[in-house]
Amino acid sequence: MAATSPLLAQQAEKFDQAMIAKIRDEGMNRSKVMETAFYLTDVCGPRLANSEGLQRANQWTKDQLTKWGLVNANVEPWGDFGRGWDVQKSYVAMTKPYYHAMIGAPKAWTPGTNGPVKKQIVYVKAANEADLEKYKGQLRDKIVVTEVTAPPKTGFEPDAKRYTDEDLKKMADATAAPSVRPAMTDDALAAYRARAALRLKMADFFLSEGAVAVLSNPRGGSDGTFFTSNGAPYAADAKPVLPEIETAPEDQLRLIRLAEAGIPVEVEMETQTKFQTQDLKGYNVVAEIPGTDKKLKSEIVMLGGHLDSWHAATGATDNAAGSAVMMEAVRILKALNVKPKRTIRIALWGEEEEGLHGSKNYVKNHFGDAVKPLPDHEKLAGYYNLDNGTGKIRGIYLQGNEAVRPIFTAWLQPFADLGASTVTPRNTGGTDHLSFDAVGLPGFQFIQDGLDYGTRTHHTNMDTYERLQPDDLKQASVIVASFVYNTAMRDQKLPRKPINIVKPAQ
Amino acid sequence: MAATSPLLAQQAEKFDQAMIAKIRDEGMNRSKVMETAFYLTDVCGPRLANSEGLQRANQWTKDQLTKWGLVNANVEPWGDFGRGWDVQKSYVAMTKPYYHAMIGAPKAWTPGTNGPVKKQIVYVKAANEADLEKYKGQLRDKIVVTEVTAPPKTGFEPDAKRYTDEDLKKMADATAAPSVRPAMTDDALAAYRARAALRLKMADFFLSEGAVAVLSNPRGGSDGTFFTSNGAPYAADAKPVLPEIETAPEDQLRLIRLAEAGIPVEVEMETQTKFQTQDLKGYNVVAEIPGTDKKLKSEIVMLGGHLDSWHAATGATDNAAGSAVMMEAVRILKALNVKPKRTIRIALWGEEEEGLHGSKNYVKNHFGDAVKPLPDHEKLAGYYNLDNGTGKIRGIYLQGNEAVRPIFTAWLQPFADLGASTVTPRNTGGTDHLSFDAVGLPGFQFIQDGLDYGTRTHHTNMDTYERLQPDDLKQASVIVASFVYNTAMRDQKLPRKPINIVKPAQ
Repeated sequence: MAATSPLLAQQAEKFDQAMIAKIRDEGMNRSKVMETAFYLTDVCGPRLANSEGLQRANQWTKDQLTKWGLVNANVEPWGDFGRGWDVQKSYVAMTKPYYHAMIGAPKAWTPGTNGPVKKQIVYVKAANEADLEKYKGQLRDKIVVTEVTAPPKTGFEPDAKRYTDEDLKKMADATAAPSVRPAMTDDALAAYRARAALRLKMADFFLSEGAVAVLSNPRGGSDGTFFTSNGAPYAADAKPVLPEIETAPEDQLRLIRLAEAGIPVEVEMETQTKFQTQDLKGYNVVAEIPGTDKKLKSEIVMLGGHLDSWHAATGATDNAAGSAVMMEAVRILKALNVKPKRTIRIALWGEEEEGLHGSKNYVKNHFGDAVKPLPDHEKLAGYYNLDNGTGKIRGIYLQGNEAVRPIFTAWLQPFADLGASTVTPRNTGGTDHLSFDAVGLPGFQFIQDGLDYGTRTHHTNMDTYERLQPDDLKQASVIVASFVYNTAMRDQKLPRKPINIVKPAQ
Repeated sequence: MAATSPLLAQQAEKFDQAMIAKIRDEGMNRSKVMETAFYLTDVCGPRLANSEGLQRANQWTKDQLTKWGLVNANVEPWGDFGRGWDVQKSYVAMTKPYYHAMIGAPKAWTPGTNGPVKKQIVYVKAANEADLEKYKGQLRDKIVVTEVTAPPKTGFEPDAKRYTDEDLKKMADATAAPSVRPAMTDDALAAYRARAALRLKMADFFLSEGAVAVLSNPRGGSDGTFFTSNGAPYAADAKPVLPEIETAPEDQLRLIRLAEAGIPVEVEMETQTKFQTQDLKGYNVVAEIPGTDKKLKSEIVMLGGHLDSWHAATGATDNAAGSAVMMEAVRILKALNVKPKRTIRIALWGEEEEGLHGSKNYVKNHFGDAVKPLPDHEKLAGYYNLDNGTGKIRGIYLQGNEAVRPIFTAWLQPFADLGASTVTPRNTGGTDHLSFDAVGLPGFQFIQDGLDYGTRTHHTNMDTYERLQPDDLKQASVIVASFVYNTAMRDQKLPRKPINIVKPAQ
């Protein structure tokens, strides 16, 4: 725990209140965050890792940041990722016992069907490898339908919630900083591994048995909403898989119920997907507002969020929202013509969804690691991330770094009336600030209202522009711009915690 | 108001409590209501008026009722309806600025596109006929996209709710019986008529301007759920319209935002629909458990619900639920081998969605009207209807008939522990009991928990088997079976109210 009392520290932490007021005025009254979000979502489209949509977004954000007056804008390769992939056609319908057009999307990095196919289905329900035996010889020339393990539930609970005062108090009062991911029990871990292994076995089995395609719904959803699953083989040397469509659970369950009742079911489908193997590299977009203080301009304040998304929607809350807020934050600062002491650098990360690749490799390339730091490792004053949906900022996670508590407490004070005043010692995980935290750099993610992120938008086909909350995004932009500006102007860089290499969950 | 006090009446109203206990045991412990619902929804499919799905359902229900031991099962024509129509293909996708498969379904009774078409869109936004002028000459060979007037809202409220004790008390305490439909104000009526007239003008305009097809979302929805609108031209001599797909609002709004930003949008679509004009008649399914009392067996107790549905889903809550409950009620009675004094007749109505056609015409054909009653008009002891979704029964609407209050109050008493004890003097409208009520026959609809009927299922593409609540349907089946049995065994037919011809809302 810090030795100073928060109150004393708050008094001691000076910052430019007049500039914060200007930032707030610009961000709340002349916001462009929704316009930016529109371009990222509707205009660029889905932004799967190394897809054409992500390429469009990389180019557009680079150009837009330059238009706003940032310099050194660059679409910067971070290293080798894997194949590009885009959907060119997606159609699936039940054609027997009667016609019904289904809701679905090809699973990322799956091949197309090579024209329309119309086949009987076989429902395969397997709890383990032995269960597959009974389908031997049954799958040739068939479309395989796998189990829906999370059927839709009636919505007695609202999709969207904000943190209550009680929720926030609990976070503020937390004394420990729990690990980024709660460790799995041995049993849960064994079950998880068994399921993953079974999925691979099933994919091989379907292919070797001569099935034509797979319809799956591994993660539920409801009302026309379905989740797109990760874990697809994007590697250039990935072994072949069957065409596979992830479907809305209602549509898939209808097929299953009919099949289980012994009623012949026929499905027609056509998917066309396009692989790109000319350029296997991944990219981040970066741009700067240069520092103006002779001594401090070589130091850097970073802000960022991942620009890539899943492919069945336009990745509005995951994470056009965070990207648009970060862009808006630097737009606000440029509109105010700030002269920061330190250099402010925005980074829009690529390939986050496949394992924080863009940020991890950027950190490795620019800052090195905790054991072998590069020269810029010492130069980073702080990194701020946004990637928990469209909800407004309610405070910030200290990420176990108690020394920043008085600073962040002071900086949040002008935003108490906007609902952002909670400082929690807790860690949060799952996104790009971890890449900094992992090598001993002060990287932070804000606390955001969850809204319908967990229920409706995160990794679903319904993560669209409609889900964005304009007022929340304006508020977040203002707070991020303020934190970034304060960090750029502070006498000292943000204090760091003892180096703490985050190990992946077992 | 009735002259007897409810308490005295309740004591006076005798019924066979032992049989009610048997009905409850059969219905709660050996229910087949979900199996029936599965056949009506998944197996028969969408059951649009005079569609192949409704024909399948008519045949299946007739056969099933016969298997259970009912007699005189018949698919009985009620008169002329209009064309049959079924969907044979439905595909729509945005193909520029990038590919995105859209969620949608052809509007009922629209023609197909005659193969795939791929065209630029024009967004047409018109508040009145004059606004259409500016699109003159702009629509040839284009796909027209019309306005989304109810954009999706974030779900801060749950989709599904049950009546609270307070809600029910309000219904019970109501003293007046409000008219079936609150009258529109003159202004609202004028606006409604203007909108309807504008829609017709727009359809003509799009056709005459040489547009290829229309994408519309007149009623909102969210998360992949959309509503199918009514008012389609099913008449055999309906004038031509363009192919039209109703879409998920998220998909349609993306097209609109892009078009409004001046970005060229191309849509590919293919719909194939099949008209049937050989048989323009509409049908109801009827079947009987014959009465056994010499004097009373010529009298009839009826129970029913409409079997038809809209076409974009399987009409699970509207109204496979009510149909399955009514079928289950007679199955329970047959399983108990009851010997009712009066004849019990189930009716599954056709073409309710287009204006209660099946029940209205059945009543006309069998009972006549209030002015010229047919001989059976005097024979009907009562009619019970179910058509407000999958929610359990919470009580019954007296439909302004105070004389039945003490009877229904007594009959509900064994089901207080199942949440059904409210008797409200209120009218309820919108479904087939009105056809009886309109000619002075005692027709009733039960009070049902709303659940997600208004938000998710009623007339949507998501009115599927998943939405059915097994426990609610079991409870409803038991209560309906009891009311029907009690009505069949009672010394007198249900009392009638003074004849009250329901006028359509102005």
